[in-house]
Amino acid sequence: MTTTIDDIQDPALAARLQHLLDHKTKPVGALGRLEALALRIGLVLGTEAPALQAPQMLVCAADHGLAARGVSAYPSDVTWQMVENFLAGGAAVSVLARQHGLALTVVDCGVRHDFQPRPALVVRKVAPGTRDASAGPAMTPAERDAAIANGREVVRALPGNALLLGEMGIGNTSAASLLLARLEGLDIADCTGAGTGLDAAGLARKTAVLREVLALHAQAAAPLDALAALGGLEIATLVGAVLQAAAERRVIVVDGFITGAAVLVAARIAPAVLQRCVFAHRSGERGHALMLERLDAQPLLDLDLRLGEGSGAALAWPLLVSACAVLREMASFESAGVSQRGA
Amino acid sequence: MTTTIDDIQDPALAARLQHLLDHKTKPVGALGRLEALALRIGLVLGTEAPALQAPQMLVCAADHGLAARGVSAYPSDVTWQMVENFLAGGAAVSVLARQHGLALTVVDCGVRHDFQPRPALVVRKVAPGTRDASAGPAMTPAERDAAIANGREVVRALPGNALLLGEMGIGNTSAASLLLARLEGLDIADCTGAGTGLDAAGLARKTAVLREVLALHAQAAAPLDALAALGGLEIATLVGAVLQAAAERRVIVVDGFITGAAVLVAARIAPAVLQRCVFAHRSGERGHALMLERLDAQPLLDLDLRLGEGSGAALAWPLLVSACAVLREMASFESAGVSQRGA
Repeated sequence: MTTTIDDIQDPALAARLQHLLDHKTKPVGALGRLEALALRIGLVLGTEAPALQAPQMLVCAADHGLAARGVSAYPSDVTWQMVENFLAGGAAVSVLARQHGLALTVVDCGVRHDFQPRPALVVRKVAPGTRDASAGPAMTPAERDAAIANGREVVRALPGNALLLGEMGIGNTSAASLLLARLEGLDIADCTGAGTGLDAAGLARKTAVLREVLALHAQAAAPLDALAALGGLEIATLVGAVLQAAAERRVIVVDGFITGAAVLVAARIAPAVLQRCVFAHRSGERGHALMLERLDAQPLLDLDLRLGEGSGAALAWPLLVSACAVLREMASFESAGVSQRGA
Repeated sequence: MTTTIDDIQDPALAARLQHLLDHKTKPVGALGRLEALALRIGLVLGTEAPALQAPQMLVCAADHGLAARGVSAYPSDVTWQMVENFLAGGAAVSVLARQHGLALTVVDCGVRHDFQPRPALVVRKVAPGTRDASAGPAMTPAERDAAIANGREVVRALPGNALLLGEMGIGNTSAASLLLARLEGLDIADCTGAGTGLDAAGLARKTAVLREVLALHAQAAAPLDALAALGGLEIATLVGAVLQAAAERRVIVVDGFITGAAVLVAARIAPAVLQRCVFAHRSGERGHALMLERLDAQPLLDLDLRLGEGSGAALAWPLLVSACAVLREMASFESAGVSQRGA
């Protein structure tokens, strides 16, 4: 697959945005990282007066064959049960999306369950979960490509200029750890955390299983090869969603470790996707801080979240709205008649 | 002055809140510091289903005689000009308060300017600025007490169960640095930062002036004595506001370094005020991290903000709303029919 994502750096627009920020009624730089955020959003949307419209929370869900190896504290049935919870409005991401007016779409990318049709549910099930990556490739190349195409199509059909990424899938911290270790050449122990809550013995078992998986797929080095070998279907769908959103110049709000893994894969295919990304938070999951470093990302929040779903992206969302409001609505020293600093 | 603020620790309510959080559809603790925030708000409001109502952003403004000594990069006129900007809706705090539905009240606690009456402006001017603290006490005890009483009265007249603290006053990082150094027995150099943007030479001058001020008022050791000697009128008004809000069990959202200094004074008079406080952010101002440590405070945001006004409090506000929404609206494992973790 070849994917070209345009470089959207625009020095002239960046200079105009910086000039606007520097002349707002505040000391230069006093809004700190909110100003860098405003600059980034202005560049993504290509305007000095950015306004975020119809923001979409996209939660991609799938099951993982590797879960049979005991890499998660929860049974795989929790994946479909949580999808029902998302749709019923009782999950964290449901509550937070409601608070912030984010339209919630849940994609069944490969959940081992048949859902009844529902307005907010999009069924793009490539398979009922991945295969056990400790026994063979998690996906065939055709399955991986189908999932990526699904992600592209789902995003293409959504309105708005901002996409928030979320996910659900028992076992998917394992896939994210595997992708991080493989694509960045890191030791799996540095990439593997407790996920939803393994104890020390559980974490040791998980790490041993993941080391075995990496050895089995030693040849799967290129990003898309690694994705097929290691999983998962929701991550592949998110890769497609990220590529499509980037091509459309949407602002992409990255949640935590799993959505970060999808962005990592997409960025290794098309580096300019990172120009469109806002990283919501640094999670408590081991490996996430390392992933953010490798992505050269400075997340907005650091609240020891480790839930996924898109909950961190939703929590960070009002900061993006604030950044745009500062650009559009704050007075300048001239317009407000406020004295500049002394010589 | 004697002030008693009740201890609101309630182990039975805390246990019920923790039980509710632990049974929401997420791994135990997976919402990280948002859960601690939910617990705190529940305890302040005395309920398992906290709802923040009619939140009030209170911006206290005053001038500082010490500004004549060149401790700020901006002229004192900026204080009244920024008050006009707050009221006209063009300042950062105006924009952010609008975004989040925070009612904005600006208090003239001692600005060297006569304002025309306006709906959102409350004039409680004790004096047209403090006196130069490098020549004598910034306030008389009577002025200090009048400012504290003003803060109490202003809050008493405001509706709602949450108070966000903001401030404006050219020179007021100096007063905050002085109070921190004096009340905590710290070296002034560790408490003094660039404020609105001094360069290295300016910071050295400022530090030297503040050291001189501390030496002049060596006897002003008790919190209220230090407050009168060092200033300022907006900080004293905020002390009253904090004490009143604490007595009424409002949630108090502390912005940055200057509002933090007011909380520090209030807490040294009545330690239980801290039970009601949520610290919004860690600012880029030197001294603030140290102040937060001394207050045993873990701020929500760390975005290198150094604007004041209440801007950090406003930016953190949606996290408080989220914390309450999680408690009130998230499903439990039982209610959602989601499987618990394995044995």
